[in-house]
This record gives sequence, structure tokens and C-alpha cells, in this order.
Amino acid sequence: MSAAIQTAVGSKVRVLSPATVANVVCGFDILGFALDNPTDIFEIELSNQKGVTIINKDDYDLPLEAEKNVSGAALLALLEDAPDVQGFVLTSEKHIKPGSGIGSSAASAAGAVVAANYLLGNRFSKEDLVRFAMFGEKVASGVKHADNIAPAIYGGVTLIRSIFPLDIISIDAPPLHVTVVHPQIEVRTSDARQILKQNVLLKDAIKQWGNIAGLVAGLIQHDYDLIGRSLEDVIIEPVRSILIPGFDEVKSKCKAAGALGGGISGSGPSIFMLSKDAETALAVEAVMKEVYTRIGLDFHTHVTTINQQGVKLI
Amino acid sequence: MSAAIQTAVGSKVRVLSPATVANVVCGFDILGFALDNPTDIFEIELSNQKGVTIINKDDYDLPLEAEKNVSGAALLALLEDAPDVQGFVLTSEKHIKPGSGIGSSAASAAGAVVAANYLLGNRFSKEDLVRFAMFGEKVASGVKHADNIAPAIYGGVTLIRSIFPLDIISIDAPPLHVTVVHPQIEVRTSDARQILKQNVLLKDAIKQWGNIAGLVAGLIQHDYDLIGRSLEDVIIEPVRSILIPGFDEVKSKCKAAGALGGGISGSGPSIFMLSKDAETALAVEAVMKEVYTRIGLDFHTHVTTINQQGVKLI
Repeated sequence: MSAAIQTAVGSKVRVLSPATVANVVCGFDILGFALDNPTDIFEIELSNQKGVTIINKDDYDLPLEAEKNVSGAALLALLEDAPDVQGFVLTSEKHIKPGSGIGSSAASAAGAVVAANYLLGNRFSKEDLVRFAMFGEKVASGVKHADNIAPAIYGGVTLIRSIFPLDIISIDAPPLHVTVVHPQIEVRTSDARQILKQNVLLKDAIKQWGNIAGLVAGLIQHDYDLIGRSLEDVIIEPVRSILIPGFDEVKSKCKAAGALGGGISGSGPSIFMLSKDAETALAVEAVMKEVYTRIGLDFHTHVTTINQQGVKLI
Repeated sequence: MSAAIQTAVGSKVRVLSPATVANVVCGFDILGFALDNPTDIFEIELSNQKGVTIINKDDYDLPLEAEKNVSGAALLALLEDAPDVQGFVLTSEKHIKPGSGIGSSAASAAGAVVAANYLLGNRFSKEDLVRFAMFGEKVASGVKHADNIAPAIYGGVTLIRSIFPLDIISIDAPPLHVTVVHPQIEVRTSDARQILKQNVLLKDAIKQWGNIAGLVAGLIQHDYDLIGRSLEDVIIEPVRSILIPGFDEVKSKCKAAGALGGGISGSGPSIFMLSKDAETALAVEAVMKEVYTRIGLDFHTHVTTINQQGVKLI
């Protein structure tokens, strides 16, 4: 075995891998941020066996075959660039519910490759890791996208200006509190993609790029009001929100309760709201609970903050 | 006459009003910046006569009837909100050639209302002045737009997140050198608008909002490389550049000469390029001169910097 490997077969690394919010209203396909909660736990060890062995320690019954497993596919991509390494055993303990819209598959892909990179003496750059992890996203949704993976790996708020070539920019945001509600309905990412129109009106596109420019400026300049004014989506939300019962009511009542704004997390069904302080984030949670209790849909909520570090060694 | 007016009939104010670059490649209709050169000169005085009297001290033969004159229409809009004021006499000395694509009409509208506001003791906010000046833009192009007027009044780089309601954000940019070439052909703003498709592909719109987000982040974070990478327009430039002979050659050769990037200024025909330093900006000018001399088109060039102040009292 090559000297490049810092740790011996049998060495273990454990990481926490965060949930993430992609799209962020007007930032469809280009913006995302990481959450302090919930997180998955992954443990990885070097193996003498070729390839990737998956052990699931949760009830989600995710595929054990590496090529069909999100973490597995990401690790196989990494192994292509690490010819001195035989393989890995990955133990997966997922707490981010698959299909919830807060980056469960990205957490699996990002957590696995960051953990593997620790084992290998951090030989890969963050950008390399994003590239590997996108193979996991492809298994999950059929499309290589980085708007969950980049924030999971970099932490904070990340802008993905371009995928080919990959261009990831960390956006220095002010403290933000995040409230998420996950109504227990299924929205398949493929359905959420299919429902979108392939053409948009130029005048709507102009509104959208005004808003994303405003949002990025508001984040970097720590201007909460501007962040709030810019959280407007005239293209994706009007179409996708139809798939989420109670969306309009949740959104308007959360803003009335003091949220800066928010919208669909990823392709849904989760809805996220940003607030300036913890009290407001809790008031927003109360509104979400009230609406979905009345509608009669099961739900989970998370009240959390933006995770600044991304996947973390424990 | 009301006590609110600080200056007596006959008092004069003179201002320099700057040229501006609107659209800025990926910021169609939402981004603009002011130039230190060229500038128009306006002199305004309070008058006992109702309305606006225009005196032209240049050879452009612009309309003398206030309603049809860009400065005049802007001043008439201001007078609507200043019932205590009878009227103005405006003397106009234009150096920014009308139709060049570097905000000649915006300079006329912005210069007039900022000068009038000085005379009236600065009773109006910058946002008010933008609102008045947009009436001038409507005379010039049939459309109320603020992406030249806002930088002319605020100085620096401005983002117009929204026109209705008006939301202008100053973007703190690093020092930038600007080279402009104006090939002497006529591109009517109305033609340049008509040539655009009303629908755009969602995938192109996503690229565009990735780039505008990158450009705003690059400007605020003073990241020249990111500014350069983000100066890409997949929607407007491919269509409009057809109207400008030599565009592709100028652009590629200027980038080869060290420019960060650039593109059509406003709706053309001027082309602007951004550079990190004065030497590069001059090398870029040499390239522009070489191309248009060879093509055989008359042209003017300007080598300048971003104007941080906007319309300035002299």
C-alpha cells in the first residue's frame, strides 16, 4: 500500500454531515446553504477489499450496492482518483429523511467523500470532493447538481456560478435563523423538475436576476431588509408550490410572524423560512405547526441556524 | 415665493453629469456604473416663468420644447412635486454623443434634476430624483428604465433590483479602469429592444443568474478574477452583438490584451471593457483602435475609471 496514505487499514473516521437548503427562492440551481440541524453520521474505514461496502444503521433501507447507493457512487468516483487505495467500508446512520427536500442525498454523498478524504490525509481539494459527490447526486436524481453538495462541503452559503467548469463561491452571510417544515407528502425530484417550463419570459428572467443580485448583495453586505425584499421567485415557486399543500398560507403567515422570507427548500416538499433572531424563528415554527395541524398533514419541523463549517469530523 | 426655496430667482448652479454603462453584460436592465469621462455640463437657474426653458450650447440640435426634451421632461416631473416653484431655465452643453450607448439621455435627465435639487436646497432624495429622471428616459426611448440614471445620480456601480417599486442598491466595487469604443454606426434603442426574444430558455436564464450573482459577489468582495469569469452573457449579447460590426473580434482581442471582460454598453453600439489597471486599459484601447481602423469605421474611444460621485456640482 502506498506511502501517500496517512492511515492504516482499519483506521476509522466519523463525521457529521449537514442538511442543506438549495435554490433559496430566487437562486434556482445556483445557491444553497448548510444547516446545523439535522445531520447524518457516517463512519468510514479503509479496507483491503476492492470497492465500497455499505452498512446501514438506520431504517431507510437504502441500497447496499455501491453503484446504486448515493454515498457509494460518490466514493467510487473518489477511488478512481486514488489508485493506491483498495476500498472503504462505510457505515451510514441517516437522520435526514430521504425525499424531504433538505439535501438528504447530498449529505450522504458529501459526508462519505469528506470522511474518506480525512482518512487519506486530505489529499483532495474541496472542489475535487464536490466533483466526486456529484456522482452521488446523479444516482439520487439523475442530474449532477451541486447546490446541496457545495454548502454541505464548504459550509455557510455557497454560490455555484457554474457547474461546467465548476465555480463555487463562498458568500459571507450574516447570522440567520432557519425554520424548516417538512409536510409528510412525497414530491419526487423528477416530478418537480418535469413540471417546470423550459421557456421563461425574458421579463420574468430579468426580475429573477434582479432578485438574485439583490440577495447576494444583501447577504454579503449583511443587509437583512435587502435579503427579505430579494426573497422573491417569479419563475419556479409559482409552478412548484402547487405540489405543496398549504404553501401560500404558510409563507404569508410566516412573513406576518416576522420571517424575512423563504420558500420551497430544494424541490420540496419542505418549506424554509429565514429569520433575524431565534425568537422569530420559533414564532415561525408555531405558525407552521398551526397550519399543518389544521390541514391535517403529518409534519416535522427544525429550528436551526446556518452551519458555517460543513461536514465535520467527530 | 415659498420660504422652502433656499435660493432666489436668478441663482445658478452648474453640474457635470457623467456618461454611464448600463446592462454590464449579464446585468441586463438591472446593473449600471458611472464613468469619470465623458461628462455633460448643465447650468440651471430659477425662473419666474412657468415651465422649463431649454438653451442648447452644442451642435446636437436637441428639441427645445420641454416635453420633448429629455432634461425638460425630467424637470417637468420634478416641478409637479415642487408646487412652490415657477420654472427653470436650463442651459445644456452636451459632450456625450446621443445614441452612443453610454447614457447620453440619462446624463441629460440626471444632470438636470440633480442641478435643480441643489437650487431647491436638496429637498428631494436621490430616489426621488431617479423617479423624475426616468420621465426623461421615457422621452428618449419610450421606456422608463433606471440602469443609466441610477449610476449617474448615485455614482459608482448600482443595482436596480426593481423599478416598481424602485429599489436601488449601491454596490461597493474595487477600482476598475474602463475602456470604451464607440463605432460610428447608429443602433436605435427601439431596434435593439425589438430584436430581443420575449422568451428565453430556462437553462440560459439559470446561467445568466449564476453570472449576475457571481458578478455582484466579485464586485463586493473585490475579487477581480471572479468579476472576469462572471462577465458572460448568454441571452442578450448573442442577439444584439450582430448589430455591431467587429464585436466578436474586439471582445476576444481585448480579453487577450488583458481586459477582465466586457461587452455591449447599454444597447450599443459602444463596447466597454473593464481592466484592473490603467496600462491594460490603454492596451485595450490600442486593440479597439486597430480593429476599427482596419474595418474602416469611424470611432471614438474613452479610457477612464468608475465615477464614484455621480452628478457633481462645479
